[in-house]
Amino acid sequence: MQQRVSLITLAVSDMNLSAAFYEALGWTREESPDGVVAFDLIGQTLGLYSRDALARDMGIKVSDISGFSGITLAHNVAKKEEVTPIYLAALKAGGRGIKEPHDIFWGGHIAYFADPDGHVWEIAYNPFSPLGPDGGFQWNGVA
Amino acid sequence: MQQRVSLITLAVSDMNLSAAFYEALGWTREESPDGVVAFDLIGQTLGLYSRDALARDMGIKVSDISGFSGITLAHNVAKKEEVTPIYLAALKAGGRGIKEPHDIFWGGHIAYFADPDGHVWEIAYNPFSPLGPDGGFQWNGVA
Repeated sequence: MQQRVSLITLAVSDMNLSAAFYEALGWTREESPDGVVAFDLIGQTLGLYSRDALARDMGIKVSDISGFSGITLAHNVAKKEEVTPIYLAALKAGGRGIKEPHDIFWGGHIAYFADPDGHVWEIAYNPFSPLGPDGGFQWNGVA
Repeated sequence: MQQRVSLITLAVSDMNLSAAFYEALGWTREESPDGVVAFDLIGQTLGLYSRDALARDMGIKVSDISGFSGITLAHNVAKKEEVTPIYLAALKAGGRGIKEPHDIFWGGHIAYFADPDGHVWEIAYNPFSPLGPDGGFQWNGVA
């Protein structure tokens, strides 16, 4: 199994509402087949998919999709000052604030919010692990 | 907010057990600071982080990390025949089978398993959206 994630799927209750949330943050959706809203993440895709469809595909009950698994998606930014505007934009777009922008012990500046279905995003400035040329996070083993 | 995910964090109960699971699938960990096990995903990082630490950072209770949020991480493969060996390797490494490899209505061949903490992976062959040169999923709007 190679080290990569091709597609991140988020189960959602209301496809239009969730798509509008990400579009309000400035994202552009791809042409997608019925039943999926796809956002291109530079060689990776984030897909919104209905809770019913995911449960069907996985062979579980829709009611089994409940709670918080403990997965967070981090969006790293290049400057500390970029954290707050994104956090506020997410709240304005209908996201739920979990933790306001704050300095954290390892030297970064982070905030957490949830999208309309409770999927958790971390907006992070990490002065020790700068963003690479492709906008990706460059892990350097220091934090 | 640019369209990218810098870091995917998976909260885990036992860092060594979870790290061993991904290493058994052939992954190589990066040099990581204390408290994090990082795997490089080509310009992105997958990090294992303790449930206690994530709860502390988010300002929630550890007991709030429970259930299945409805996030799946898909690992797409280039050939249909690659799905089953990865699924079986995951089970052998201590993963839990959710849905065995099977053809799905949209023309693909997929399987679902959970890692030791219940984080859900989809192994997928999608004949309509081949893997790109970087190994990433190329969304082409057909499924």
